[in-house]
Amino acid sequence: MGATQDIARFVVETDVEALPERLMHEGKRCLINYLAVSLYASRDPSLNILLDVFREEGGNASASVVGAAARTSMQNAALANGYLAHLDDYDDTHFPTIIHPSAPTFPAALAVAERIGADGRRALAASVIGMEITCRIGMAVHPAHYNEGWHITGTCGVFGAAAASGRLLGMDTDRMAQALGVAGAQASGLRVSFGSMTKPLHPGRSAQSGVLAALLASRGFTSTTEILEGRRGFTEVYSAESDLGRATDRLGDHWELYQNGLKPYACGVVNHPLIDAMARFRDSHGVTADMVESVRAMVHPLVLELVDRPNPRVGLEGKFSYQHSMAVGLVDGAAFPAQYTDERVVDPEIMRLRDLISATVDETQEEGSAEVTVVLNDGRELTEVVEHATGTPENPMSDDQLESKFRALAGRTLSEAQVERALARLWALEEVESVGELFSLFRAGG
Amino acid sequence: MGATQDIARFVVETDVEALPERLMHEGKRCLINYLAVSLYASRDPSLNILLDVFREEGGNASASVVGAAARTSMQNAALANGYLAHLDDYDDTHFPTIIHPSAPTFPAALAVAERIGADGRRALAASVIGMEITCRIGMAVHPAHYNEGWHITGTCGVFGAAAASGRLLGMDTDRMAQALGVAGAQASGLRVSFGSMTKPLHPGRSAQSGVLAALLASRGFTSTTEILEGRRGFTEVYSAESDLGRATDRLGDHWELYQNGLKPYACGVVNHPLIDAMARFRDSHGVTADMVESVRAMVHPLVLELVDRPNPRVGLEGKFSYQHSMAVGLVDGAAFPAQYTDERVVDPEIMRLRDLISATVDETQEEGSAEVTVVLNDGRELTEVVEHATGTPENPMSDDQLESKFRALAGRTLSEAQVERALARLWALEEVESVGELFSLFRAGG
Repeated sequence: MGATQDIARFVVETDVEALPERLMHEGKRCLINYLAVSLYASRDPSLNILLDVFREEGGNASASVVGAAARTSMQNAALANGYLAHLDDYDDTHFPTIIHPSAPTFPAALAVAERIGADGRRALAASVIGMEITCRIGMAVHPAHYNEGWHITGTCGVFGAAAASGRLLGMDTDRMAQALGVAGAQASGLRVSFGSMTKPLHPGRSAQSGVLAALLASRGFTSTTEILEGRRGFTEVYSAESDLGRATDRLGDHWELYQNGLKPYACGVVNHPLIDAMARFRDSHGVTADMVESVRAMVHPLVLELVDRPNPRVGLEGKFSYQHSMAVGLVDGAAFPAQYTDERVVDPEIMRLRDLISATVDETQEEGSAEVTVVLNDGRELTEVVEHATGTPENPMSDDQLESKFRALAGRTLSEAQVERALARLWALEEVESVGELFSLFRAGG
Repeated sequence: MGATQDIARFVVETDVEALPERLMHEGKRCLINYLAVSLYASRDPSLNILLDVFREEGGNASASVVGAAARTSMQNAALANGYLAHLDDYDDTHFPTIIHPSAPTFPAALAVAERIGADGRRALAASVIGMEITCRIGMAVHPAHYNEGWHITGTCGVFGAAAASGRLLGMDTDRMAQALGVAGAQASGLRVSFGSMTKPLHPGRSAQSGVLAALLASRGFTSTTEILEGRRGFTEVYSAESDLGRATDRLGDHWELYQNGLKPYACGVVNHPLIDAMARFRDSHGVTADMVESVRAMVHPLVLELVDRPNPRVGLEGKFSYQHSMAVGLVDGAAFPAQYTDERVVDPEIMRLRDLISATVDETQEEGSAEVTVVLNDGRELTEVVEHATGTPENPMSDDQLESKFRALAGRTLSEAQVERALARLWALEEVESVGELFSLFRAGG
């Protein structure tokens, strides 16, 4: 039996009841994170481009676009939601592959689940299994695949999207193998698109391709049943080096979702350990901005390469300023989008504090670590060593932190009452009888 | 200026009035051929899988699927028509790249043209320009690209589909470059899919991706403007060797469509020179089956490798039988689908004639050539040397032969009166005021 058949069987036969509690909880956390970033992104004007194309093209009102009023076809919803999930680069990351597994998977799974009236548990299980497939296939081709220029979230995302969709549609193993074949024939996404709207379109298109693959294969459409291992198949063509054993090794016993990190801060990851340290001064030592004489950070070289910007003038520049990120870390104990607005970067208290912050390269630091020392007006010196930044697999965001992120991001679109109702239902996803009910909670003003 | 900008400008700025008469005529021939094979394919049951997905997903009634009663969205129509065009492997072939340029291009162009009410001339010009772009970009990456496992019609087809669609939507050069960027980010199609329905899905998906790219870019969606030449762009990632100069060299002065061949016979090309020879015995020498004592063919080695099947039992096997192909060539002077039915391969006259036919490898023959000698009952020997089979650029199908193909294939779906009306309108495409009128001619029973 080849890898494609093994994966198809795993997708079809895995028993929801047998999925570990911890895994389902992690899946829920991914879902909450996915919805948080998508609800926030749904206020970006570029969503209107997609919605306008949907109006032009039409489609049955089967599935919801996060944050939009009208429902649309499953494929349209998958496309738009995949786009929103990745638009702000604030979604999850599977550390071994830098795949963002939620962005192509949830949009596909939830669109199909909403259409067929699946309950929360089934939708979550299908999503968790789909994300596993995407990460696994990613591991089989990483890092050569990414280095060659592929946007791995786009390319590998089609498989998880098809897997989740096909499982919800009740396929048998052979149909599932065909669905993976149709999906793989649509794998695409290039790194040359980075910096444009086409980057987040990649997971959107992957989600849509996965739904299409499942809709076709469930009706008898044929493809290769060896898309992964076949001659001139996916792994051979999309990567100079690959190891399909990584896709199937201990499948079902070991779960890659445990290597998936949720991003706590709305800026590049090199800032993260620095923000962590500042938040600790604030939360554990009661340090406030007016107590600070100076701050010195020992950092990984990338910090000075990428985010040394002492005087950001607009919000976007703030995201590329370790000084600003550290300042808001101390003052607000957070680095959500609200900390990176045009107003916030010119706040006098923040500007004054930024001027007191400096950094020095320390070759012993890793990308997720830093050592920060604050000198206080009263002469005291405090030092915080961050070994693994929040949001890495070694130091995951707590559920409380995730709730804070959801409140901060979803609050752009939903009322406070809606936010709390949504959070309560999401944590109790097993009790949600239809995914459609879930989406009705997210309709702005609803 | 890079290749992408050069191509975008060419697509946008080329004046319809300046296109050579010969080129527009060749475009018309491609269109007639495209519609012939699509009308024939539209009776294949697998189309119902696509149409059923369209019903499930919905869509405005904007564009026609060849041979289907109801209209659907532009993207759906593009997907289905691209599928039909390539389903029977009976479409056109650009010889330098083995791209099938019509299959991804006409479906995209005609869907957009029908929606916006474009006239026949505009739709044809956009299609001709789109096919040029697909062939040109194919030449830049061929043959390494195909050898690596890509289905070049699927991958390169997105560019021509986006170009034709974008031109019809009236884009400027910058928008067109963005549209090419969105399109290239969706390029896909693997040779591992060959032998399944997913193979013809490739040009369908390309057509759809091109329409989507144009709809998005025309509304301000952004992408790279260097999809072809950019670091980690299309040519770098999709091909170990490439030469973008071939994409832009003499663009507008030299047209690749002149290297595009229409396929006269419904079987593998290695049979074609043999059928040609037999048709010549029939048409030029009045040879009939009952006059034949034996037939000896000198052939390229691939003939014996691929199509040596003296006793085909079903129609599909007939396509892989040089003996059967030669027999119908003499008896019918044709090798249309009607010559490859289950009934036809067991016809007693054909079976008797097949037994008299043999072939010998002749290393001096090329794939498009053959030498055939027939020994007649009266002792005469006649020899025909075919240097270039019909349908190659050196020996194109005549307009009369193309009309015969259209009649033979479209007749599966349309009445005789419809066929003749359609042919008359297609040859006079410049007078067709809206592409929608054209499609109304093709509705079965209409």
